[in-house]
Amino acid sequence: MSRQPDPNRRNEQSRQAIVTAAADLCAEVGFAAVTVEAIAARAGVGKQTIYRWWPSKAAVLLEYMERERERAAGFPDTGDLAADLLTQTTALQRLFDSDAGAVWRGLLIAAQSDDVAADGVRALLEQAIVEAKQRLTKAQGTDELRSDADLDMVVEIIFGPLYHAWLLRTRPLPKAYMSDVLKLVFEGLKPRDRPLIR
Amino acid sequence: MSRQPDPNRRNEQSRQAIVTAAADLCAEVGFAAVTVEAIAARAGVGKQTIYRWWPSKAAVLLEYMERERERAAGFPDTGDLAADLLTQTTALQRLFDSDAGAVWRGLLIAAQSDDVAADGVRALLEQAIVEAKQRLTKAQGTDELRSDADLDMVVEIIFGPLYHAWLLRTRPLPKAYMSDVLKLVFEGLKPRDRPLIR
Repeated sequence: MSRQPDPNRRNEQSRQAIVTAAADLCAEVGFAAVTVEAIAARAGVGKQTIYRWWPSKAAVLLEYMERERERAAGFPDTGDLAADLLTQTTALQRLFDSDAGAVWRGLLIAAQSDDVAADGVRALLEQAIVEAKQRLTKAQGTDELRSDADLDMVVEIIFGPLYHAWLLRTRPLPKAYMSDVLKLVFEGLKPRDRPLIR
Repeated sequence: MSRQPDPNRRNEQSRQAIVTAAADLCAEVGFAAVTVEAIAARAGVGKQTIYRWWPSKAAVLLEYMERERERAAGFPDTGDLAADLLTQTTALQRLFDSDAGAVWRGLLIAAQSDDVAADGVRALLEQAIVEAKQRLTKAQGTDELRSDADLDMVVEIIFGPLYHAWLLRTRPLPKAYMSDVLKLVFEGLKPRDRPLIR
């Protein structure tokens, strides 16, 4: 066995320290106020170490989101669509309230004016939407979801309410929010016991 | 009659020229790249004229959105909920595609780090949500909407899909988008002719 330190392992430790420092800072001061200097100071590395690996703070934070995504297990599939949607959307609501939520919010803002952030956000969203649509396609086959519904639109109907409240900061959401949303969108907003003759 | 120019009228013309110039610039170069200098040059006024009336570019663009809102007629009420929701949401989709959409996007971004923008955006959203909930309350009385549905949640279910696709820029939306969304959320995502015994 070699007694030499493994440079790959040391690099990975530094990268991990940098992305964690960037996410912590983003949660503390907000994306706009994060600087590469502050990330370097927090991670205990030089600014040049960060610029050797990433072009900008947005790129560091994208790597944080990609690592978060890899730690998640993908879209759940227990065979019960209602249960799986509740698991997935409740996890997203929790993420929005966490440090990763502050990072995601920052990246969505940066994506409006920064091409690196825009490409990274687009890739993350595309991957999430593809996984959701795969699960929904299966549910159409098991008669748990209308077969005539456009799946991009179903994704927007399921995830739109949560994004609306979170991105627009209109109100704090109750813990059981997604349970009630899913019930309403699956049953429909029409009165259920509407009499035929009144 | 006085032959003197009316200073109030002249001020109003200057203000209108400034807010229009700010919105045009926002649509052309995006919120992040708009500067007070560029607004002043476009409007043909001095920078100090702008700073006499507004503290920042975000404040100028807020006044643009407030003027746009005043020109709109409020939430429609023809007595037919489905028709009124389609009118209102289709108008919003058109607004998102217009210069006002670029301004609104910019203000939503600015609201994340600028208190003036955050307060203005909150007031505009609150007003829109109050008006929507008034219309929905009436619809619960006429049995066009489930009476057990939380109205903040109904607003999020109706407007969330459009905001999701527009803010996250996930895909271009078809013209008939809101017609199909409203059909799905009112009828529900469950299969309609689900057999009791298979």
